Amino acid sequence: MEITKRDKEVMKILTEMGEALNSQIKKGENPTYKLPVRTLNNVFFDKKTQTIRLGDKTSERQFINVAHARKFMQTVLVANEIKKVIHEAATVSIRDLYYALKHTIADTNENTFEEQADSDPIIEDVECSLNVLREELHLGASSKGVISGDMKIKDGKDTIDLTKMGSGGWGVPSNVEPDRIEIKDINAEYVLFIEKDAVWKRFNEDQYWKQHKCIILTGRGQPSRAERRLAQRLNKEFGLPIYALMDADPWGMYIYSVIKQGSISLSYSEDRLATPSTKFIGLTTRDVETFKIPKEVTIKLNAEDHKRLGEMKSYEWFKKKEWQDEFANMKEKNYKLELEALSKKGIRFITEEYLPQKIRSKDFLP
Amino acid sequence: MEITKRDKEVMKILTEMGEALNSQIKKGENPTYKLPVRTLNNVFFDKKTQTIRLGDKTSERQFINVAHARKFMQTVLVANEIKKVIHEAATVSIRDLYYALKHTIADTNENTFEEQADSDPIIEDVECSLNVLREELHLGASSKGVISGDMKIKDGKDTIDLTKMGSGGWGVPSNVEPDRIEIKDINAEYVLFIEKDAVWKRFNEDQYWKQHKCIILTGRGQPSRAERRLAQRLNKEFGLPIYALMDADPWGMYIYSVIKQGSISLSYSEDRLATPSTKFIGLTTRDVETFKIPKEVTIKLNAEDHKRLGEMKSYEWFKKKEWQDEFANMKEKNYKLELEALSKKGIRFITEEYLPQKIRSKDFLP
Repeated sequence: MEITKRDKEVMKILTEMGEALNSQIKKGENPTYKLPVRTLNNVFFDKKTQTIRLGDKTSERQFINVAHARKFMQTVLVANEIKKVIHEAATVSIRDLYYALKHTIADTNENTFEEQADSDPIIEDVECSLNVLREELHLGASSKGVISGDMKIKDGKDTIDLTKMGSGGWGVPSNVEPDRIEIKDINAEYVLFIEKDAVWKRFNEDQYWKQHKCIILTGRGQPSRAERRLAQRLNKEFGLPIYALMDADPWGMYIYSVIKQGSISLSYSEDRLATPSTKFIGLTTRDVETFKIPKEVTIKLNAEDHKRLGEMKSYEWFKKKEWQDEFANMKEKNYKLELEALSKKGIRFITEEYLPQKIRSKDFLP
Repeated sequence: MEITKRDKEVMKILTEMGEALNSQIKKGENPTYKLPVRTLNNVFFDKKTQTIRLGDKTSERQFINVAHARKFMQTVLVANEIKKVIHEAATVSIRDLYYALKHTIADTNENTFEEQADSDPIIEDVECSLNVLREELHLGASSKGVISGDMKIKDGKDTIDLTKMGSGGWGVPSNVEPDRIEIKDINAEYVLFIEKDAVWKRFNEDQYWKQHKCIILTGRGQPSRAERRLAQRLNKEFGLPIYALMDADPWGMYIYSVIKQGSISLSYSEDRLATPSTKFIGLTTRDVETFKIPKEVTIKLNAEDHKRLGEMKSYEWFKKKEWQDEFANMKEKNYKLELEALSKKGIRFITEEYLPQKIRSKDFLP
């Protein structure tokens, strides 16, 4: 791994953070830094960008302040270690970082950190106060998705042809930032973002991506940052629409909303993770009638589903009529259904009939 | 996907199953088939093969028998659908299969299956009574691992060079049987089977596989069938030793035992999944002294750890002195530790010092 231009910029940002504190000390001031407030009352849905975002409330952390001193120390430790990691051209996990920094402070019984739950929020503080992505700090988040389709990836010295990944697909790495991952020679008209691995495998086995000129991507359940960031890049840099293919249940629709608008917990990074133009291609409970899906393969809603449905109905980004209609239909019919239920109509019904018809008729939810 | 020689063999086995029932019916006999008993009292550790196996107890399932009729019908439905899937050159998930077969029997209120928990054990019955792997029945189990190293994979028309997978690795597909996945041009001396994705990423980022001539594989936690089968093939077909790199805790050691001896729940397939010659390369609690790992990064054992430790001590395959010593040491020191704890010694301590020294000194547990 080589040190990139962006790495140098990030190291400079970290150095400036340290220098600012240093100059405060030299002036005899109480070392202080500002950071955005990450509590719920500073998180909002930005109608302009159509993503969940952090507001502009900030707080201060001071070294000479009994309530702040420990976190102040932890923040400086974390920022310092991150700079070292970038300098060494390495990537570490947030758990590595915790262990690397955990020690008993000399001549005391005090540990720098007791558990990873202490260091994780400090990392988030550094991310959002410096306005850099975790990946740019060389902290590898987990990634578990796979991707295939007609495009090439330049990753270090390797050029990876995603048309030639066989039945396996390319494992999405945790850092897909432009300084690491270059997307090349793309020949596709849209990205199909599939909730489930088993369904991705069906699309990959039939080489759906070839016949229908698309990229197929799965996050294997709730996608990691990397899969969402990759989808955003494909959308922003190459103008590809993102179509989400999820179960017709509150969980699938929630995953869709995270791909599209982002999540509260990552609100400070959603401008670089969310893809607001994403469309929901299916499944919907309306599909049961449209595609004559037998009732036996639907599943009765449980109490949790009803609760989630009630919550989602009131979300600002689900206020559109089409979504309200879908929620009402789900409630009225009192069922949900999984993508695999389409197998009732035939092994390849989903790839040969369902999806082509949905795309042809532009039968999406917004 | 093309129909292979093995596919034809398996379709023949399925046809023979149907023909046997047919001929019983024609003779006016009660249609009956035999299947191995899969309860705990028919599972044993085979000292000869050094794997967990199913014993030779069998039971019969009869059509004209109130207690058997439903399962008999389900078994025939499953076997029939599988034959169809293979014939159509497709792979489906076990959930697809459940949905494909679920229906209300004409003129009754009876469903063929109520939930997937009904069809899954029937699939296992078919697997073990016909002595074929789930993958050979074209049922795709989940797979979540990644692999890289100096080897090529021929998968359908694609030849995948695992030295050129960048930071992502190749996603291990669910079916790695020889009729689908050909392993070629391998230039490696061993396979490093890594418990954790974050640790695999560290080894991949440093291209450890290149410098140390090995294949690096992770199942991201408890490995799926596919990762274990792939390791077995690398061991059996190419004579590569498998070294397992796990956390020094009861869970990591349990995962190791599954890679090596297999598990009770898959006892009927372990002859094709387990790799009995696998060695445990680390971590061990002994490593704390050997590598001077600071005590701060160890974790106190909890009640569950002590319980698991007590259980593992009595397992036949952990009876060897080295393992009993390790368990005693863990109990005495009352700590466990994670692979990431080695980051305390430096970002690249694990790849540049720990593992090379372990391999050089052959410091393995059996």
